[in-house]
Amino acid sequence: MHRKVQAALIQLVVGKSRSKNIENANQMICEAKNKGAKLIALPECFNSPYGTNFFKEYSESIPNGPTCKMLSNAAKENEVYLVGGTIPEEDNGKIYNTCTVWDPKGELIGKYRKMHLFDIDIPGGITFKESEILTAGNDLQTFTIDNNIKVGIGICYDLRFEELAKLYRKRNCELLIYPGAFNMTTGPLHWELLQKARALDNQLFVFAVSPARGDKGYIAWGHSQVTNPWGKVIAQAGHTEEIVYCELDFDECDKIRQQIPTFPQRRTDIYDTILLNK
Amino acid sequence: MHRKVQAALIQLVVGKSRSKNIENANQMICEAKNKGAKLIALPECFNSPYGTNFFKEYSESIPNGPTCKMLSNAAKENEVYLVGGTIPEEDNGKIYNTCTVWDPKGELIGKYRKMHLFDIDIPGGITFKESEILTAGNDLQTFTIDNNIKVGIGICYDLRFEELAKLYRKRNCELLIYPGAFNMTTGPLHWELLQKARALDNQLFVFAVSPARGDKGYIAWGHSQVTNPWGKVIAQAGHTEEIVYCELDFDECDKIRQQIPTFPQRRTDIYDTILLNK
Repeated sequence: MHRKVQAALIQLVVGKSRSKNIENANQMICEAKNKGAKLIALPECFNSPYGTNFFKEYSESIPNGPTCKMLSNAAKENEVYLVGGTIPEEDNGKIYNTCTVWDPKGELIGKYRKMHLFDIDIPGGITFKESEILTAGNDLQTFTIDNNIKVGIGICYDLRFEELAKLYRKRNCELLIYPGAFNMTTGPLHWELLQKARALDNQLFVFAVSPARGDKGYIAWGHSQVTNPWGKVIAQAGHTEEIVYCELDFDECDKIRQQIPTFPQRRTDIYDTILLNK
Repeated sequence: MHRKVQAALIQLVVGKSRSKNIENANQMICEAKNKGAKLIALPECFNSPYGTNFFKEYSESIPNGPTCKMLSNAAKENEVYLVGGTIPEEDNGKIYNTCTVWDPKGELIGKYRKMHLFDIDIPGGITFKESEILTAGNDLQTFTIDNNIKVGIGICYDLRFEELAKLYRKRNCELLIYPGAFNMTTGPLHWELLQKARALDNQLFVFAVSPARGDKGYIAWGHSQVTNPWGKVIAQAGHTEEIVYCELDFDECDKIRQQIPTFPQRRTDIYDTILLNK
């Protein structure tokens, strides 16, 4: 059975103009499709500058806002699976950091709200508190692409929480996609390591898709990355706007899972990672 | 409060003579003590060649065998906390891969039996099946050193199971010590990454203590390593016999736990890593 997928991670420049951000994303999706991508992923907060002071102004309802309309059309026109990065979502007076997923017919097949809000305080480095304005999501989200390959979604800071990744592994995911905007402090410290850890511990592919590095406000680290099930980085962007292409060979998941069979060797007679009350 | 500990990881040469292995370990412990170490850790399977065909012949009862007698005396004479690597343990007709822990009075204060047996099969690389001869342990083991610093124990292949490390973090460990003998296939692939992942995800120090690289039989990777709570390698051996010294500053645990407070941010309303029926 064919177990290869052509994919693209689009490291977008994000500015203050929502309409320009949306149109730029649309064009880049077409470009990625033209180069053969069947699965395309966008960065965190690609229609808005990243900052607690912007989230409310740029927030939209899902799926009725202008960003979702573009994403749905782009998925349909290009006949691709589209992981629409994240946008600030307004719902019932609350704002979420939300990822939408679209199938090749333009249908919304998944929605994930960031579960772990980014509240950190590194003096001389970065201080940020998403929870001042955002509400956290409470649900995992998976979707299935051709050949029955299951994909799980997380967002940025979620990368630090290995239990979320394990829950996706328990649901048989073979790829985790994290739109994410690390910064100039946490990027060099942990961006690459966290993805390699999630990939190896769960023996699956990991995408992390960053905005391109800007020059003011919150400065994203860039370096959108693809890591294989052995924990090896197989593609990585620089820090400017670019598209990272990769061929995912899911036989690599089978291979490591057969050769180093840690998942069935977990001592689930002794411990487990569980969802509570679900 | 003083939160620093001088430690040493002893990367021992291991040969076929049990008595020489024991005596060499004893001398190296003295040397490490003389250089100021208060906490000393030995490698996996340091009194026996590593191989399923050796475990039975070299196995001893704990704490009455000759290896434990040396370890107890060495801890007492040198007034150190001693993590006695591992030895093949015979108990009631079964054989375990077991780590013993000794306090500065020479008392046995902990015993950990490898929970995840090393059964892998990488064609052209390494095939090994500990479960042919060994029985797995079922219990975690922690101990406390001066200033109330709690340490958790794992062994080698246990490094791949992040849930075990999380359970130790839930018990407030600030250091995990893994005697371990990776090999020439898995060493370059995963030795360093797994330790960095365990350290960063749980914001604690990690030791992995390997035998020195031999030239026949199972070839250990060496590269005994100390990783700090930021996931950064702060000391690493080469592949020959040597002692790695480090000063552990446990204020680093406090610092990252305060600045990037992932542990209290875990969504334990949604998921958890739990011990079953315990």
